[in-house]
Amino acid sequence: MSGHIWEAIMKELWFRGELKEIGRDECFELLGSRSVGRIGYCTSGGAVILPVNHAVIGGEIVVRVSPGGQTARYLRDNAPEPDLTYEVDDFDDYTESGWSVLVTGTARATSPESLASLTDRPVPWPAGDYWDYVRIHPTRVTGRRLVPA
Amino acid sequence: MSGHIWEAIMKELWFRGELKEIGRDECFELLGSRSVGRIGYCTSGGAVILPVNHAVIGGEIVVRVSPGGQTARYLRDNAPEPDLTYEVDDFDDYTESGWSVLVTGTARATSPESLASLTDRPVPWPAGDYWDYVRIHPTRVTGRRLVPA
Repeated sequence: MSGHIWEAIMKELWFRGELKEIGRDECFELLGSRSVGRIGYCTSGGAVILPVNHAVIGGEIVVRVSPGGQTARYLRDNAPEPDLTYEVDDFDDYTESGWSVLVTGTARATSPESLASLTDRPVPWPAGDYWDYVRIHPTRVTGRRLVPA
Repeated sequence: MSGHIWEAIMKELWFRGELKEIGRDECFELLGSRSVGRIGYCTSGGAVILPVNHAVIGGEIVVRVSPGGQTARYLRDNAPEPDLTYEVDDFDDYTESGWSVLVTGTARATSPESLASLTDRPVPWPAGDYWDYVRIHPTRVTGRRLVPA
């Protein structure tokens, strides 16, 4: 039996991490600790997953989308309360550990003026016309931490 | 005007990256360079996004799921060809740059024996009964690179 196969079998049996649930407060802390996450929504062609920049403001997740883009179209087509999922995670390849937070909620168009302060709002990394502000109101927040073996 | 607000306005106007499309071959290279991605699928409660370990084998993405889990249930309920989305990305907070690849496809149950070799198969980082092997056959592969300003 070659060393590679032996290694694969060993890996399968041992050295595997443990998944632990994360409470809602810690989920929000983790969401706030990052500026990139992924919005998810359903189309006739299946689920769409797209990285975006976000901010956590008043218990909601705020993102910005381009008025001419596919996400804006989805939100318009499913107004007034389209489902919108948001996911944030972080993983370490070396220790094979990490965490993820999944927010299921409904989206509402909002205005930059309605946000608490100018400095809190999300700023997209790419150049572009990300003028539509969208608030995701969470209906379900779950998270898991993968603790190294 | 406070320094913080000034900084926010400057950031809005300048120093923003440029999005560039990634070709299909490079998308597969990027998929193969990572062992963690996110499956996405649609349920009555909206899109689900869940991190998993993957392997790229013969132009398909192979993941493993727990027979008793929600993903296995989704796949059973939508057999024989459930839509399944897969997303991989990587971002750098310092340079505000990165890339993402989105695969839209259909999923099929498969067996470990059908995979080219034992060492190629995906090994989940968490301990658990990830006995079900699933191949995602891509119908659409798109990617974007965010190049620093």
